[in-house]
Amino acid sequence: MSDYIHPYRDAEFVLNELVELDRLCADAGLSDVNGELVSAILAEAGKLGSEVLAPLNRTGDTLGVRLGESGVEETPGFADVYRQFQEGGWPSLTAAEAFGGQGLPNVVGTAVNEIWHSANLAFALCPMLTQGAIESIAHHGSDMLKGSYLPRLVSGEWTGTMNLTEPDAGSDLAAVKTKAVPQGDHYLITGQKIFITWGDHQMTENIAHLVLARLPDAPFGVKGISLFIVPKFLPDREGRFTVRNDVACVSLEHKLGIHGSPTCVMSFGDKEGAVGYLVGEPHKGLAYMFTMMNHARQAVGLQGLSVAERAYQQALPYAKERLQGTNKDGSRFSIIKFPDVRRMLLQMKASNEAMRALALVAAAETDRAHGADAARHQGRVELLTPIVKGWLTELAQEVTALGIQIHGGMGFIEETGAAQHYRDARILTIYEGTTGIQALDLVGRKTLANQGALLADLLEEIGETLQQLEAGGERFAVQANALRNALEAGREARRFLLDNAARDPSLAGSVSVDFLLLFGYLSGGWLLGKSALRAQALLNAGGGDARFLNAKLVTSRFYAEHLLPRTGALLAAIKAGSASIMALDEDQF
Amino acid sequence: MSDYIHPYRDAEFVLNELVELDRLCADAGLSDVNGELVSAILAEAGKLGSEVLAPLNRTGDTLGVRLGESGVEETPGFADVYRQFQEGGWPSLTAAEAFGGQGLPNVVGTAVNEIWHSANLAFALCPMLTQGAIESIAHHGSDMLKGSYLPRLVSGEWTGTMNLTEPDAGSDLAAVKTKAVPQGDHYLITGQKIFITWGDHQMTENIAHLVLARLPDAPFGVKGISLFIVPKFLPDREGRFTVRNDVACVSLEHKLGIHGSPTCVMSFGDKEGAVGYLVGEPHKGLAYMFTMMNHARQAVGLQGLSVAERAYQQALPYAKERLQGTNKDGSRFSIIKFPDVRRMLLQMKASNEAMRALALVAAAETDRAHGADAARHQGRVELLTPIVKGWLTELAQEVTALGIQIHGGMGFIEETGAAQHYRDARILTIYEGTTGIQALDLVGRKTLANQGALLADLLEEIGETLQQLEAGGERFAVQANALRNALEAGREARRFLLDNAARDPSLAGSVSVDFLLLFGYLSGGWLLGKSALRAQALLNAGGGDARFLNAKLVTSRFYAEHLLPRTGALLAAIKAGSASIMALDEDQF
Repeated sequence: MSDYIHPYRDAEFVLNELVELDRLCADAGLSDVNGELVSAILAEAGKLGSEVLAPLNRTGDTLGVRLGESGVEETPGFADVYRQFQEGGWPSLTAAEAFGGQGLPNVVGTAVNEIWHSANLAFALCPMLTQGAIESIAHHGSDMLKGSYLPRLVSGEWTGTMNLTEPDAGSDLAAVKTKAVPQGDHYLITGQKIFITWGDHQMTENIAHLVLARLPDAPFGVKGISLFIVPKFLPDREGRFTVRNDVACVSLEHKLGIHGSPTCVMSFGDKEGAVGYLVGEPHKGLAYMFTMMNHARQAVGLQGLSVAERAYQQALPYAKERLQGTNKDGSRFSIIKFPDVRRMLLQMKASNEAMRALALVAAAETDRAHGADAARHQGRVELLTPIVKGWLTELAQEVTALGIQIHGGMGFIEETGAAQHYRDARILTIYEGTTGIQALDLVGRKTLANQGALLADLLEEIGETLQQLEAGGERFAVQANALRNALEAGREARRFLLDNAARDPSLAGSVSVDFLLLFGYLSGGWLLGKSALRAQALLNAGGGDARFLNAKLVTSRFYAEHLLPRTGALLAAIKAGSASIMALDEDQF
Repeated sequence: MSDYIHPYRDAEFVLNELVELDRLCADAGLSDVNGELVSAILAEAGKLGSEVLAPLNRTGDTLGVRLGESGVEETPGFADVYRQFQEGGWPSLTAAEAFGGQGLPNVVGTAVNEIWHSANLAFALCPMLTQGAIESIAHHGSDMLKGSYLPRLVSGEWTGTMNLTEPDAGSDLAAVKTKAVPQGDHYLITGQKIFITWGDHQMTENIAHLVLARLPDAPFGVKGISLFIVPKFLPDREGRFTVRNDVACVSLEHKLGIHGSPTCVMSFGDKEGAVGYLVGEPHKGLAYMFTMMNHARQAVGLQGLSVAERAYQQALPYAKERLQGTNKDGSRFSIIKFPDVRRMLLQMKASNEAMRALALVAAAETDRAHGADAARHQGRVELLTPIVKGWLTELAQEVTALGIQIHGGMGFIEETGAAQHYRDARILTIYEGTTGIQALDLVGRKTLANQGALLADLLEEIGETLQQLEAGGERFAVQANALRNALEAGREARRFLLDNAARDPSLAGSVSVDFLLLFGYLSGGWLLGKSALRAQALLNAGGGDARFLNAKLVTSRFYAEHLLPRTGALLAAIKAGSASIMALDEDQF
């Protein structure tokens, strides 16, 4: 089992140098928020993460959760963790002040959320989903719903869930069958939802379930889905939430990972029907889901970084302590002396730094989308969201696998702990939309729908960083050469898609995942190139922690050498198009 | 849970078209062995695999093994499987006829072993390790040892184990501490061994442990290690094996996968010392281990193919049956219609076919190394062994991960079965020498030690296939272009290593894994290119199963488009050398 320490130096470097947090806060009129305050917040969160959340990460894995007579019993100890989490005010960090929130920028919330997900991924899913519920209600709920639910969700007094999936409706929500029948001021909901994360627990007195269902007059397909709030407990005559609503977890899934997070089959309306309240207008449920999808998807991408960081922190001390080489005099040395072990560690470290940079830069775009040049920033949010979700979670698979590999045989032993991160990470490319779904979003709504304008804008900005690297001469030659090749691959991939998608209906789907990964690696290379420029500038000015900044130059270079060249292989696969992919009849597979 | 059916058409295609089995058998003087007989053997093995081994694969995973009062209790049902396996004569397939073996070529044994590993990886480890024990004794044991042990191991009456690893001696066997003290005609062994696969069970009346230990006068390091046989039971006065030797499993590991395979901590000589018999000469244990290492390493590489094949067979029916898309009229279609799902399936299928081709071609080289032009074939065995072990097992990680991904959320649910293959596969890049160890072997003993001669010979043969593809014109243009680039990458990587390794002691270790993977992808591309040529020739001649042969042309093309280009990215990483890998101080990680 590993300890967890928040890598605050790297987070602060990204916030200060890439995000330019002070400027972001000033532009947003948050005069009392600045880098110093954020560092203090991160330090406090880091402490809670290390001391309270992280020690129960393995407990969640080994003890898991169970379904008892009065519902789901979370892992022993989690309720106490939740209490401390709530008392620290963490659920309210980025929520609107009108509902008791602290109104901090999303990018600060994201930097803090990295800590929760690293410390205890299974636990952190609970507040993450609550945040999604808060957003849905805040954006689309009536004033009455807002008044009833938001203060309690924002304070963490209650938690929230998202109920989308049904046995026959996963990626394809058109098939949702759960019904909602109007009855006075509310609706009666009946149906079954599956894969509901934290669908039940005993940590809070109530749970607000957000549920997709169909009204009796609903049109066919995704345009006939409405959004409802279904609380676990309804108010009694005194307004206390003591009356059990007709909704319950009827079974728990036995999963590969995140054992501490209950994944529920939820049954609505087994008896008289579950009381629910319509959020916003009828038939707009899917659109409302999309409102918060950018946030939820970026949050899952962030989990990719978080679990990869945890895997790195598990592997690094092992590599430093494990004696395995023998010197000629019989003395031993640790495996971190072996170049191949260093290569694996650097692959993890460089990947993590690229992921952190992209996750925070993308999060900051959602803040900037509320200020000057809003449309451009919102466009960037739209573009980066599937890349953050898709690429970070795919990269997390590789990093957590390397975490096992560095341990050798010990990595395969569950008690070591490396395997948990590997197992936990495996869900990330699946939930909140698979990599394939993210990739279709990227090539379709985010690229073809705007003739590649959003990508062109990103490519242009990357080109500016390339010019700065080129201007730096020999010092940045490795990064500049690799980024130039990758940028050209990105341009060519964009052109190829735009030129060919219309005449070949299978093309976009055939190349989509490679397309997403290409832009992921390119974006990472862009931001680590930019990081090298900033690190060198700080070194030249004699500012900052020189050993940290010099290491940043090394990881930037390693990334350019080892990860950026993958864009060439991805481009080749993209340009192969759909022919061989569509060639086989089903019985030839 | 998935059924398993041996993909006999592909195995036979590889055996007939790439291995040229009939010629191999004729050259070896095995006049009664031919393709027809081998097909019959494969059909019989496939039946046992599907009907007997495969149904217990999931049982092994869920029930696992336990340590009882009289030792390790294997998964319920495994003893019966073993009995049928033994009664079928499968343990003796490739063993020498002098000891009751059937004397079939190694490549036939390998084709059959693919079935056992696919059907039940955890179970199949037991006969796999027994085969290793047989080889050690057959090559290095005295006539007395051979006479006592081989007939019983070959018949499957007993099983064998390999006891190498100790807590402080994993990849670095120089640190082995287990002691052997001479006493009359035998030795008394004391020490602890870890990670001993199938170190104990109740399926057979005896187990022969092969153990590395040090004699009292042993020189320091790997040159002071000797090899011993330590039977679980010693003979009583009537020659029946009823006297318990002082060796026991003292605990079992709790592992990420292969739960049906007991991984034992073995204690030797807790009381009076375990009776052991020296195999061959003193201090030559490590050399003896190397004798069978080629076989054992190729066998683990084969497991990579096997578990990947099983993962494919798990994912394919799901993709055909899972309805998730909705047509405009409301009817549903299965996810195999989606190009991205087809891409994932083809990635699995093409990878598997490349792995099968390389595994069987490498296995055939070990047969040919006993005939004409033996030195060249033995050189090829030496060269291909680390590639087969390293590349196939790394590729298996990707294929089993895709197997989960195709299932979406269901892939993360343990009952689905896809997760087991993913967990089981994770050990393969670790045991029998990690990928890093294989890669060091490839760049060191197999390349630098012979100035790249072995690689040059392989590259030349690949060049011949390239010429044939080029001569085929437009029909093979995709394969030819991709193979040309990959071949050039291979040549450049070889030159770069030879030119730079001497002046930079960190270089070989820094680039080794990328070097191994590059030659893995290149070898796969070579053999699938060759497969395309043979498939087309058969089609032109009107022979064979046209739908199968046309599918082979498609997977060959897909591989050239999607997997071969990775060689470019790997070459770039290789040419980056060691600078950034060696740049950081340990505290900068």
